[in-house]
Amino acid sequence: MNQEMIHTQQVGAVLTITLARSERRNALSLQMMRELIACLETTAATKEVQVVILAAEGKVFSSGHDLSEMTGRSEAEYREIFETCSAMMETLQRLPQPVIAQVQGLATAAGCQLVAACDLAVASDLAAFATPGVKIGLFCTTPMVPLTRAIGRKRALEMLLTGRLVSANEAAEWGLVNRVVPAAQLNEATQELAVQIAAASSYTVGLGKNAFYRQIDLDQHHAYEYASGVMTENALAGDAQEGISAFLQKRPPKWTGR
Amino acid sequence: MNQEMIHTQQVGAVLTITLARSERRNALSLQMMRELIACLETTAATKEVQVVILAAEGKVFSSGHDLSEMTGRSEAEYREIFETCSAMMETLQRLPQPVIAQVQGLATAAGCQLVAACDLAVASDLAAFATPGVKIGLFCTTPMVPLTRAIGRKRALEMLLTGRLVSANEAAEWGLVNRVVPAAQLNEATQELAVQIAAASSYTVGLGKNAFYRQIDLDQHHAYEYASGVMTENALAGDAQEGISAFLQKRPPKWTGR
Amino acid sequence: MNQEMIHTQQVGAVLTITLARSERRNALSLQMMRELIACLETTAATKEVQVVILAAEGKVFSSGHDLSEMTGRSEAEYREIFETCSAMMETLQRLPQPVIAQVQGLATAAGCQLVAACDLAVASDLAAFATPGVKIGLFCTTPMVPLTRAIGRKRALEMLLTGRLVSANEAAEWGLVNRVVPAAQLNEATQELAVQIAAASSYTVGLGKNAFYRQIDLDQHHAYEYASGVMTENALAGDAQEGISAFLQKRPPKWTGR
Repeated sequence: MNQEMIHTQQVGAVLTITLARSERRNALSLQMMRELIACLETTAATKEVQVVILAAEGKVFSSGHDLSEMTGRSEAEYREIFETCSAMMETLQRLPQPVIAQVQGLATAAGCQLVAACDLAVASDLAAFATPGVKIGLFCTTPMVPLTRAIGRKRALEMLLTGRLVSANEAAEWGLVNRVVPAAQLNEATQELAVQIAAASSYTVGLGKNAFYRQIDLDQHHAYEYASGVMTENALAGDAQEGISAFLQKRPPKWTGR
Repeated sequence: MNQEMIHTQQVGAVLTITLARSERRNALSLQMMRELIACLETTAATKEVQVVILAAEGKVFSSGHDLSEMTGRSEAEYREIFETCSAMMETLQRLPQPVIAQVQGLATAAGCQLVAACDLAVASDLAAFATPGVKIGLFCTTPMVPLTRAIGRKRALEMLLTGRLVSANEAAEWGLVNRVVPAAQLNEATQELAVQIAAASSYTVGLGKNAFYRQIDLDQHHAYEYASGVMTENALAGDAQEGISAFLQKRPPKWTGR
Repeated sequence: MNQEMIHTQQVGAVLTITLARSERRNALSLQMMRELIACLETTAATKEVQVVILAAEGKVFSSGHDLSEMTGRSEAEYREIFETCSAMMETLQRLPQPVIAQVQGLATAAGCQLVAACDLAVASDLAAFATPGVKIGLFCTTPMVPLTRAIGRKRALEMLLTGRLVSANEAAEWGLVNRVVPAAQLNEATQELAVQIAAASSYTVGLGKNAFYRQIDLDQHHAYEYASGVMTENALAGDAQEGISAFLQKRPPKWTGR
């Protein structure tokens, strides 16, 4: 698939996907979402990529759905837009590689959802977050799925019912982003985090990320049962045997990705 | 139903329901709970009300169940009290209009639960919260249902096992209340929040609030499926079409509530 | 069962279980876990114990699994280790008595999980927390079960994917521990909390703790149904009737534990 709305750049084991429609506030048009899904699916099968950064050009991270696609459509067309959007969010979490949102500016509606759906998020102190759909008659219902699960009930309801802007620091206190850095250090801080994660075994990280989202929707007893099985599988793998041996022998491990 | 224990006042689209038994610390007697349920059910069908504020007279927001109803009763009587209480809490969340707790003082046991069960909460800096049932041999088991879901496990268990008072500021850090204001500004701050929410389409707010509580108890995949359907329904509605058009045309929207 | 790896000491109604293999960083070897399970099972049936403190000797609270048991084992052996570990964590929560982790130092991997699985936690300002399994190829999959449920998604994923150390103060902000005190006051602060809880009816506390973990994995409506039934049972019990009467008569209650 052609990439007209996103750019990608791989440095070492870190792939940066950049939303590149700043003149449209990086709106998640159908085409933008399809390009992202296609890119993520290719990435899933690319062994050389161990961490993904999701960044954006311009002053806005993403303003959410493209409103020019939102009026006068048929039910089937709306359904396609929203199902494509949910599929994109779920693809992010099914990807074996961790995804870090690098939020340089405003992230609103489905753009805010995108941050909530990424595994990790680093924000510039100029970033801000909102789910303002209520103000234009279109409640941010799909955005609230990962938002509620990231920041809890009362805070999510406040964002959803008022649409108010939440600063980067508030977002960090609430658990929507992992850290806030000065704008000038955003690239470097995100890269540093990505490189740190890329030092681990890709087998271990992929297994762990997948297990994270599987266990979180189980009741605790079934989560323990499931997780004990995953631990056993993990312990038998070459990279765990190598990693533990290297640790006990006080030498660096050599990963094989298996 | 007569209202002996609560007062109501509507200003514009905001209905304030006030617990008015300050001489009994606004205890949630059976009669008080029945009056609240009846009032909420009437409100649900009142198009002119777009936001509800739940306030209280006196120094105590609510001390929870009326202890004079709590000794020497039969199993059937206890069951009636606790089921009526749970029904009241669920009625608050089923109401299409958002409910804001305006907490001017102490909120304990089922009174604390009432704050946790409201969609939003604004607290005076003189407010405080506790679930002290453990001290009188009656564990705050029903209060812990919304409390745990609002503030998380360790903090909820500390409140439940020790019964200690939690200040308004702690409650805000933990996500039990949305904001804390000086006592003298409590009315104004709550009204301001209510008026802000009342500016939105009642159709959109009602649909969004209902979807919020529906999706939150689903696993994430089913939550996305459900939410995508709600978004589609919402996008087809008149108020969304109007809201988006108004936004694109840079004019204020005219809501019809459909 | 002999206790070679743990010590126990009962003072009043508070039993302190101390991990006592500081020369092995209190690693959770199979034997250590079996001793803990046996001790907890005995404690469950000991009416005289009303609160349990889980403490540790030395500079490390617990470093998690014993890595010397982690290489070159068969699938059946790994399975036994991880299932024993999960059983220990679930035994902590099934215990009728509340368990307070007293964290004097580093708690990593399954040692961090142990803190997350306890009902409450008090930490020294010298304590720190990490789930660093990713660095040795063995993702902290079972630790993430209670960790995610204590601190939320983005923060748990950051700990799991980077393995970085989290300070005691961060852990308190995130809800992993209830409070942080200077190292010199750790014993006293934990004892004080334990004694406060031990003042309550053991019947009420046991019923409440059990209900806490039962309701938390239900959807809210079923949680209310379940909790209303527990409240009714509780209200009919002698200790609730005594506690409420004592409160109304402004005298101290006399608990019978029923």
